[in-house]
Amino acid sequence: MKRLMNAVETMLDESLDGFAAAHADIVELGAERKFVRRRTLTPGKVALISGGGSGHEPLHAGFVGLGMLDAACPGQVFTSPTPDQMVAAIEAVDTGAGALLIVKNYEGDVMNFEMAGELAAAGDRRVESVVTNDDVAVPNSTWSTGRRGVAGTLVVEKILGAAAEQSMGLEDLRDLGRQVNARTRSFGIALAPCTVPAAGKPTFELGPNEMEIGVGIHGEPGRRRSKLSSADAIAEEMLSAILSDLAAPASSECLLLVNGFGGTPLMELYLMVNAARRILAGRGLAVTRYLTGSLVTSLDMAGCSLTVTLLDVRLTRLWDAPVRTAALSW
Amino acid sequence: MKRLMNAVETMLDESLDGFAAAHADIVELGAERKFVRRRTLTPGKVALISGGGSGHEPLHAGFVGLGMLDAACPGQVFTSPTPDQMVAAIEAVDTGAGALLIVKNYEGDVMNFEMAGELAAAGDRRVESVVTNDDVAVPNSTWSTGRRGVAGTLVVEKILGAAAEQSMGLEDLRDLGRQVNARTRSFGIALAPCTVPAAGKPTFELGPNEMEIGVGIHGEPGRRRSKLSSADAIAEEMLSAILSDLAAPASSECLLLVNGFGGTPLMELYLMVNAARRILAGRGLAVTRYLTGSLVTSLDMAGCSLTVTLLDVRLTRLWDAPVRTAALSW
Repeated sequence: MKRLMNAVETMLDESLDGFAAAHADIVELGAERKFVRRRTLTPGKVALISGGGSGHEPLHAGFVGLGMLDAACPGQVFTSPTPDQMVAAIEAVDTGAGALLIVKNYEGDVMNFEMAGELAAAGDRRVESVVTNDDVAVPNSTWSTGRRGVAGTLVVEKILGAAAEQSMGLEDLRDLGRQVNARTRSFGIALAPCTVPAAGKPTFELGPNEMEIGVGIHGEPGRRRSKLSSADAIAEEMLSAILSDLAAPASSECLLLVNGFGGTPLMELYLMVNAARRILAGRGLAVTRYLTGSLVTSLDMAGCSLTVTLLDVRLTRLWDAPVRTAALSW
Repeated sequence: MKRLMNAVETMLDESLDGFAAAHADIVELGAERKFVRRRTLTPGKVALISGGGSGHEPLHAGFVGLGMLDAACPGQVFTSPTPDQMVAAIEAVDTGAGALLIVKNYEGDVMNFEMAGELAAAGDRRVESVVTNDDVAVPNSTWSTGRRGVAGTLVVEKILGAAAEQSMGLEDLRDLGRQVNARTRSFGIALAPCTVPAAGKPTFELGPNEMEIGVGIHGEPGRRRSKLSSADAIAEEMLSAILSDLAAPASSECLLLVNGFGGTPLMELYLMVNAARRILAGRGLAVTRYLTGSLVTSLDMAGCSLTVTLLDVRLTRLWDAPVRTAALSW
């Protein structure tokens, strides 16, 4: 494994320092680098806070800023942040309207965010949470009871971010978040594994002509190992799983997120966009919004995920609302 | 080599179709996919056109839009586009104020853009060009006489794009482009090679603990092969080469672009931001603008480049001016 680093122990801290310097117009680091927060808060707005293991950049710190998150707590690579980090973030960015925690469904994350919420609530803060579980690949997984939360999490973060800017209250945001999660499904495949710096060896092995169907964003096993097939066949399998679970009404409009896991060139991601949009059109779904890029990554894993979110007029407007973060801006 | 594709022959076309669909609010494809152009042109504005081999995405098509390019011509992977493509692009987006061609210094690109410029000029169009050659690693290279044009090209495209929106004329834009290029230097290193789909094998070989110092964006050889060293030592070597060539006046302000080659996680790129900014500060250079991401890539090559552009008040304002493209937006 080759990494641009000085030492495994300082890698995250150094990366956070670089991130904070590069985006000092938008974010600042909390004390002891416990969280990344917006430089400027909006008093009276519900605070949106997420977080999780590092190694998925730009998720989540790259989504802190106007129209999206107020703070993000970075854990060590593929490791949940601590309740201590989350409580510090809540205290830093909750201006009185309460805090909504957006949590990917992994046992460590769920447990720690729950504990943080209870601690903050004991301190008289109003805290609610949304747990994302958009990954249809497997019903349970290495680190999750129930489905995993993956790339669809950023869709929840974007839509809630817009609604929060428009003064939506805490409980309504929580309900909207659960609704967006319920309208969102994802499915990932890997062509090559990732390597966690502290481990120094790949998280799994793949033969020269194999792929992992239904892989998780930490390289967790999916449904099966298979021979590498064509982009069209891969997109077909991914979308079949997504659509059979989503049960979209006829003539639905949707958002298509084609997400790279880190090691896959953008040229291939756009090729997958093309494959997916034709398949979706054939199933009667109109893709009215697109997002393409390596946004919810697994270090240097090669592969991608597809995410479909059913839109309506309100969700489309919230998706289109202005956003100004390190990784998403429009 | 594993690729998300259906066939090598159709890969570029399918990817362009996906790109055009995903960004239909900003761009459209020219006939026979000869170029990607802005959907909406500004009459009387000088047209900025670039292009080059594919495999460097998001460069250049990802930089087409308000505040940057008017058109980009995609060649096959690592292969220059043809004069025919460039002439078609000029005819499509020159609204009468002339066309400025922004060309990376590779023999094929320079020759074809020159031919296209002559053909367009014979058709009574005003055409000027700027050739970028920001890579200080080697004086000549596999496909270039003189220095290679690499990631600094996007800095030229951004600054000229802003100036063109502000109604700067053709000759002034050409001169400004050459000035920005002269104030810009880059240096790249690779930790792992890329694989051209049609070739099916890596462009070069690296040992398990080796890196290529001064690599080009097609995997061309650099200065030397070396043992992998720390991020700080790598950044020091890269910036020493850049700064000794740039001869920056004391207390200069600069833009720092940390560019990933495709296979390197964002976490490592931000770690390099941190290393580079400390070294630059130690040399008396204040980094006042940052850009970080995999923006001028070499398919799935692992590694990164550093680019430094000396800023002044005018260039900083042009850098900050609004941009709305698939890959850059602020």
